[in-house]
Amino acid sequence: MSEVFAARRGWLRDRSAAAGSAAALVSRPANVRYLAGGAPPGAVLLLGPAEDVLLCPRTPSGDLIEGHLDEQLRLTVLPAPDGDPAVAAADLAQASGADSLAVEEHHLSVARHRALGSVAPRLLLNDLGGAVEQRRLVKDEEEIACLRIAAEITDQALGELLESILVGRTERHLALELERRLVDHGADGPAFMTSVGTGPNSGRAGHRPADRRVEEGDFLSVCLGATYRGYRCEIGRTFVIGTTPADWQIELYDAVFAAQRAGREALLPGAEYRAVDRAARQVLDAAGHAEAFGPLTGHGVGIEIDEEPQLAPGAMGKLDTCVPVTVEPGVHLPGRGGVRIDDTLVVRPEADGGPELLTITTKELLAL
Amino acid sequence: MSEVFAARRGWLRDRSAAAGSAAALVSRPANVRYLAGGAPPGAVLLLGPAEDVLLCPRTPSGDLIEGHLDEQLRLTVLPAPDGDPAVAAADLAQASGADSLAVEEHHLSVARHRALGSVAPRLLLNDLGGAVEQRRLVKDEEEIACLRIAAEITDQALGELLESILVGRTERHLALELERRLVDHGADGPAFMTSVGTGPNSGRAGHRPADRRVEEGDFLSVCLGATYRGYRCEIGRTFVIGTTPADWQIELYDAVFAAQRAGREALLPGAEYRAVDRAARQVLDAAGHAEAFGPLTGHGVGIEIDEEPQLAPGAMGKLDTCVPVTVEPGVHLPGRGGVRIDDTLVVRPEADGGPELLTITTKELLAL
Repeated sequence: MSEVFAARRGWLRDRSAAAGSAAALVSRPANVRYLAGGAPPGAVLLLGPAEDVLLCPRTPSGDLIEGHLDEQLRLTVLPAPDGDPAVAAADLAQASGADSLAVEEHHLSVARHRALGSVAPRLLLNDLGGAVEQRRLVKDEEEIACLRIAAEITDQALGELLESILVGRTERHLALELERRLVDHGADGPAFMTSVGTGPNSGRAGHRPADRRVEEGDFLSVCLGATYRGYRCEIGRTFVIGTTPADWQIELYDAVFAAQRAGREALLPGAEYRAVDRAARQVLDAAGHAEAFGPLTGHGVGIEIDEEPQLAPGAMGKLDTCVPVTVEPGVHLPGRGGVRIDDTLVVRPEADGGPELLTITTKELLAL
Repeated sequence: MSEVFAARRGWLRDRSAAAGSAAALVSRPANVRYLAGGAPPGAVLLLGPAEDVLLCPRTPSGDLIEGHLDEQLRLTVLPAPDGDPAVAAADLAQASGADSLAVEEHHLSVARHRALGSVAPRLLLNDLGGAVEQRRLVKDEEEIACLRIAAEITDQALGELLESILVGRTERHLALELERRLVDHGADGPAFMTSVGTGPNSGRAGHRPADRRVEEGDFLSVCLGATYRGYRCEIGRTFVIGTTPADWQIELYDAVFAAQRAGREALLPGAEYRAVDRAARQVLDAAGHAEAFGPLTGHGVGIEIDEEPQLAPGAMGKLDTCVPVTVEPGVHLPGRGGVRIDDTLVVRPEADGGPELLTITTKELLAL
């Protein structure tokens, strides 16, 4: 893997040089990880002018934080003196003869940016912009392999939960159990806060698990994901508890299911982001749920759980092949509950069979 | 509680007005929480000129995110239009007739700051600095009550773990079990990543639990903490597994214990931050562990797990009463392991009995 990281850094050095910066400073943790193979807390990556250097803060015990760095990596790891590693990096860049430094203005705070300017007054600070985020959008096959394993782990954890007794257990305990199972199956950890919603809480995006217990007749919606080697996936499913579903539950489920399928089927290279959103949205509009559907049909995943692109009405841009995204329409009816169905898929050409579904747990409406 | 938040906001409005800003924009999540009683993800708080407004992003399901907001709170909660709530706040401030706005330059990114300037060109942007962080340093009794409960929960979770069989279990599983027990006992969640280190990993600050299993003769060090109503505490203990400790283990433990006690005893109103650090540090220096001890003896805790003050050699300032801090010296010997002992205490005057120890789990060297 270390050649991959070196190649990514080479790309960014070339890009910065072409834009007139002798050196680049990457401070956003997900971008540091993408370029260095790991992102110790607080570390920043200085590319050029002479060599690439990862500047790490010291831990409270005086160790350098080097966790999660590819050991094969040919990268100088330096302890930052007390203070901000970004400031130390600017100092080093100026001392190495750089006259300009591209920084991530969307990440560096105004105060840090000013501190860089004071420590290295001869350095012209340019904006690197979202260059690394843009490049992270299309994944290579190694990255997709990590996402595939993350999704397998997620499916396993969810599948085991479905075999256990659910009635009477709290949302909070179900969420904790799912997270434990993710780790049991080899996840680095949960990709985001596991959401479990029962009854009136079901179907709410990002619902924080509370003390409500699962009851007969409830909708139960879960949203979880594993992180595997730093890559994060997401699955969301809604079930009905106990007997047979009520008519309104079947109707709502069918509408969300149809919207989610329409969104999935729209995932093709060249499709506009907003066309994918529209495909899902118009199904829910036609079913009379336009109001209850949120601003977004899905989003990219990777090193972060919420990356570019956004599949939303106002989003500009077109899908590329090898872009992993979620498709996650949902409807929540206040006081009653709702349905959310969420998959992680990778955009693939039709010739290769169309979108690759990573999260394969059934989307039938199961009565548990 | 809602009067507390209103009073805090009143204080900040007055302070900003005195510094020449008709309005203030708080974007740092811990500061938003301190002033508004809750910090929905991405929310920002605009104080004045007319009224106080919390601007929240919409969730993917279209709901406003209002979780963890005091329901009694007299605070206008507005949905931010698509985009950055901070930009929407600047727009609103200018439309309300403000001519200047104090912002948190240590939190707002350069790009966001610029976006504020473009949407509200008639608004002079000042720096609010770390005003809210400084005020958060001294806690009121309600805040300390939350910390006290967080510590009780933490002691309970740790106590239960000590009664279970440890040999053969992995660091990762012990950490997950501790986190589950925290939630079982009423924590909102863990205050930070629970650290469990065995054998050569013991005593390393911030050690990320891995697959190493507990073995006879190991040091086992754990560091954990509960969050209760948003307040975070921290405890760290080191144990020896199995038979009787080896001589080097007893010696190392005694040295760290003595350093930690010296640090605790130095916690008095008016004591210099660096004097507390020196008290602990010189004990370890005398025992020949100067090198292995890190840059920091402890730090403040509260809404964040790592707040002002820093108890470190270069820190300037003096302790006030009602400041909660950790005292957490540790020594890690590469290849062998080490010891870390960490308490959360509240600074109190000698007349009131001196520092209040919140984390009361025994600090004897237990052989488990």
